[in-house]
Amino acid sequence: MHSLQFTSESPSDGMRERDFTLGDVPGVLWSPTSGPDRAPLVLMAHGGGNHKKHPAMSGRARLLVTGHGYHVAVLDAPGHGDRPRTAHDEAEIADMLRARAAGEPEGPIIVRYNDHLARIAAPEYHAALDALQQLPEIGTHGPVGYWGINMGTAIGVPFVAAEPRITAAVFGQHWPDALAEHAKRITVPVEFAMQWDDEHIPREAGLALFDAFASKEKSLHVNSGAHKEFPRFEADSAARFLARHLGRPGERVNG
Amino acid sequence: MHSLQFTSESPSDGMRERDFTLGDVPGVLWSPTSGPDRAPLVLMAHGGGNHKKHPAMSGRARLLVTGHGYHVAVLDAPGHGDRPRTAHDEAEIADMLRARAAGEPEGPIIVRYNDHLARIAAPEYHAALDALQQLPEIGTHGPVGYWGINMGTAIGVPFVAAEPRITAAVFGQHWPDALAEHAKRITVPVEFAMQWDDEHIPREAGLALFDAFASKEKSLHVNSGAHKEFPRFEADSAARFLARHLGRPGERVNG
Repeated sequence: MHSLQFTSESPSDGMRERDFTLGDVPGVLWSPTSGPDRAPLVLMAHGGGNHKKHPAMSGRARLLVTGHGYHVAVLDAPGHGDRPRTAHDEAEIADMLRARAAGEPEGPIIVRYNDHLARIAAPEYHAALDALQQLPEIGTHGPVGYWGINMGTAIGVPFVAAEPRITAAVFGQHWPDALAEHAKRITVPVEFAMQWDDEHIPREAGLALFDAFASKEKSLHVNSGAHKEFPRFEADSAARFLARHLGRPGERVNG
Repeated sequence: MHSLQFTSESPSDGMRERDFTLGDVPGVLWSPTSGPDRAPLVLMAHGGGNHKKHPAMSGRARLLVTGHGYHVAVLDAPGHGDRPRTAHDEAEIADMLRARAAGEPEGPIIVRYNDHLARIAAPEYHAALDALQQLPEIGTHGPVGYWGINMGTAIGVPFVAAEPRITAAVFGQHWPDALAEHAKRITVPVEFAMQWDDEHIPREAGLALFDAFASKEKSLHVNSGAHKEFPRFEADSAARFLARHLGRPGERVNG
């Protein structure tokens, strides 16, 4: 097991931002600048083509860190951010761009490539959780949330299915093909978001993935609009959902 | 046109509560105890078998009145609350209870009876809006919201479809049969809620009604659980949705 190495620290929009590496995997940990000794952790994963510090990540982190006093960690996915692309990554990306240019559906390529990336990334998230829980400000007993949309759902569904330390999870905007079997093993509360007019992911596909979660408590948020029109207020909703289940820093939470 | 007659006034859990009649129709108006001269109005309608001051109504009103400074008005539906039941009401209720006792689907009876009630109630809501806008603290230029679930949706969908003064509407938990044609004429922002495991309303029925709204901006909230397990946090969400579209008291709002 690799241990977590902090490589730099800086303030970031009201948060303490620490870059780290875990073996070859670069990550970022955003934390409150002050607060109780110990606080819940939320693991996030970024979307396809983005990276750990994309504004969608730092914006969501800020809701959780400055709004609720949580820690938030994100890893660069394989082939993304500060990580090298393999020949396989290059070939899959080229195939996606070719399909887009030809007006062919990108879905089957994204499903296949995300599944490949998730098989590498999910074990990295388990290892990151092991390492982050060694930090005294996080610890091994606190609740842990997961938040990942798009490719973050492709990584998160298998990860959460195999990870008993996760208390609640936010997913969305993905096909069920490689994920439904994993989703059937997830029983923690889930909030799932999809776009009603998604040009890539058919309605039935999104509804099928939501339906697959075994969670007694699950919520689906559907909004009108295309794939990229995913509304910003869903981030506020996801942060409230996580806060409902992870509780306040320093507090013991049921379940 | 009947004018609005206030019949009593009392404080109620941080709100100013005024009972009124509009012709034969009893209603309640909840208002802030202090605030700007003028504030947005939300019209609410109660569920089947309930009445204008059911705790679900006063609880939702409190979110809007004490949380956002709005006025909230609810009418007793025909055959409900302080209004007499007709022989037709008695016959429909008996048929519903008979179906329930026999383990037969209640849906077709509820759809038929709610449609009957909505044809009486929707014109009453138009008249109530006319009358309430004569009050100086509401006025004719402010934004107006609508919030009704269950029977409140059966009344609200035809009402909002025919009422250009409504700015945003919250609906949920109803069959599309008598409503989809009206929903196709609704273009204001809508938040719609349904239960994924509703024992009365099939999933496809709820999704079909959501799909029917012509609104460019619409959101669907689905939660796991049976019809009556509708979660309380959806009321918070609906209040935030209305606040997003109605704005602050004393403020001019786009659209």
